Amino acid sequence: MKTIPLLLMGCGGVGRQLLQHIVSCRSLHAKLGVYLRVVGVCDSKSLIVVSDELSMELDDEFLLEVCRVKLNGSSLLTLCNSGQFQALTNSGSTRKVVDIAAVLGKSLGLALVDCSASSETIGVLKQVVDLGCCIVLANKKPLTSTMEDYDKLVSHPRRIRHESTVGAGLPVIVSINRVISSGDAVHRIVGSLSGTLGYVMSEVEDGKPLSQVVKVAKSLGFTEPDPRDDLSGMDVARKALILARLLGWRINLDSIKIESLFPKEMGPNAMSAEDFLDSGLLLLDKDIQERVTKASLNGNVLRYVCVIEGSRCEVGIQELPKDSPLGRLRGSDNVLEIYSRCYNEQPLVIQGAGAGNDTTAAGVLADILDILALFPE
Amino acid sequence: MKTIPLLLMGCGGVGRQLLQHIVSCRSLHAKLGVYLRVVGVCDSKSLIVVSDELSMELDDEFLLEVCRVKLNGSSLLTLCNSGQFQALTNSGSTRKVVDIAAVLGKSLGLALVDCSASSETIGVLKQVVDLGCCIVLANKKPLTSTMEDYDKLVSHPRRIRHESTVGAGLPVIVSINRVISSGDAVHRIVGSLSGTLGYVMSEVEDGKPLSQVVKVAKSLGFTEPDPRDDLSGMDVARKALILARLLGWRINLDSIKIESLFPKEMGPNAMSAEDFLDSGLLLLDKDIQERVTKASLNGNVLRYVCVIEGSRCEVGIQELPKDSPLGRLRGSDNVLEIYSRCYNEQPLVIQGAGAGNDTTAAGVLADILDILALFPE
Repeated sequence: MKTIPLLLMGCGGVGRQLLQHIVSCRSLHAKLGVYLRVVGVCDSKSLIVVSDELSMELDDEFLLEVCRVKLNGSSLLTLCNSGQFQALTNSGSTRKVVDIAAVLGKSLGLALVDCSASSETIGVLKQVVDLGCCIVLANKKPLTSTMEDYDKLVSHPRRIRHESTVGAGLPVIVSINRVISSGDAVHRIVGSLSGTLGYVMSEVEDGKPLSQVVKVAKSLGFTEPDPRDDLSGMDVARKALILARLLGWRINLDSIKIESLFPKEMGPNAMSAEDFLDSGLLLLDKDIQERVTKASLNGNVLRYVCVIEGSRCEVGIQELPKDSPLGRLRGSDNVLEIYSRCYNEQPLVIQGAGAGNDTTAAGVLADILDILALFPE
Repeated sequence: MKTIPLLLMGCGGVGRQLLQHIVSCRSLHAKLGVYLRVVGVCDSKSLIVVSDELSMELDDEFLLEVCRVKLNGSSLLTLCNSGQFQALTNSGSTRKVVDIAAVLGKSLGLALVDCSASSETIGVLKQVVDLGCCIVLANKKPLTSTMEDYDKLVSHPRRIRHESTVGAGLPVIVSINRVISSGDAVHRIVGSLSGTLGYVMSEVEDGKPLSQVVKVAKSLGFTEPDPRDDLSGMDVARKALILARLLGWRINLDSIKIESLFPKEMGPNAMSAEDFLDSGLLLLDKDIQERVTKASLNGNVLRYVCVIEGSRCEVGIQELPKDSPLGRLRGSDNVLEIYSRCYNEQPLVIQGAGAGNDTTAAGVLADILDILALFPE
């Protein structure tokens, strides 16, 4: 049995779901000859770690308790301490993670899993890759920081996995990596990579006002608490940057042309989320409806897409044939088209659910299992 | 630089293309820190190996010469011997491959690559997996033999890759494996997995007679020399079996319901390929055209698909909605729909070129690079 110690950063939706998957997959993983030993979990405020990282683990009962506590929106510190673990806060927790990485990294192959949505994990991630650890990311922020940070994080390409940063659990990164490693140069990537914006664009196509669609999307839990986080295009831009860098492009977030669905005057610095939802959004209805109608007269539809081609990396609304894979897309599915020598006239297409904690966490777990291959049986 | 010794069985279309890819990817692979050292190549009659497998290689110039010789339909034995390699035939070659595997397997991680279309490689493949070698297959026959053979070949799951056995270079196997390892149970797979039959079905949909379509397909090189090898459905059945076994089904080829596009009376034992093309095929036109018309009246189209669901694994013609991913399929593209907990109402879809030596060999090369991760840097 191959045992890998694992430390999880971020116990929000995806992280919590990952812990549940780990527990429910115990017998499946046993059949695969694998055991995931969770030595620590942390949220934004604190770290819970076993008192002896070489031999102990947070057991399944405790992991499920973590899920319950986080589902209720409480802090990890509310967990009662049975003496089996330590609780640390802030700077103490970063130091402790690095200490554990130093002990476990090269010998036992600690996997540090980042399911947070924070930029603050970059420092610890950069330190642990040098200590022989593997890192698995659902968090897009570390890979969309400076090129210097990026180069450091991918400096051991076999020790990093980040499938769930783009298209949730869809096999996007692994597919592009396979195309690249076979010498089949990718010359164009086009995709719809936001479940939220996919839903919004296909609803406005049906004639519904943008303001109404966004409010429904928010009530269905499809958007961030402030829907502008989705409508700004920044989330899609981060995914586009991750794909472009995967293709070897040395660019930063500010090199990407990003179309926001709202003007600067309605940005978070100028307007509250409530005002945006109550009045700002209404002012956007007419313009988008005119664009939808104009596209429709050409037999086309509008989609919020990312395009990586030539020296161009941009995200925004495009008018596309109704009868293309992107044009046919409905609801919150993602789709990615990869054009290369082998997939030239007809692209390699990957499509499916591109959002949701379950799917995203499943992608993270597949990454963890994949990275296990590095360690001797 | 990680160096992996590689021995190629089968120098037909795919094998030849693989050698060309290996040579043309030298600088790309150098950037990835990888060097593929080819120690031997064999066709159905003979094996060419270096005289010292620990240090020597068949150089790029020689590999390209192999490609030229095989493109001309000649035997490897026609290559002139500069004293750097040995040429062996028949049983001698099998013994030699096993000898090399014994020397290189565990220490340097020999990759034995099977790009043949023969059942005769099974014996040697089974022997080398026990010697610590990795095996990479484009050949479907070894994985569609008995369960006993299958169990042996996959007994070290991390040491076998066979992406190109299904959907050529499309990331089908890797995607299914990821879904499985994340505990997301697959409950249904539907796909169009034959470029030839995909082309045939979309052409008859346009009203062309089957006999004419098959003859054009043959002249375009889309079919096997005897088109009945495609029309029998056996090739698709082998792919379906590989997918079903990947899902853990313990079944054999004879458990699969296979619809042949021609009756037994027109089989290879009863009729020559010429007679089939000249007269047999004509007798099939009416029936298929009637089925196409009937489907069309329901707003449907006919597709030759594989279905794996419940306890059912079958391949044959199905009537499908024109507006489904399978119904929309045109030409020789493959498409696979995977239904699981995460991809429940909307499947995970993978689509793209599913045939061609270039694409198939690219898939094999991606497999080889992937398996390199097993060996320490």
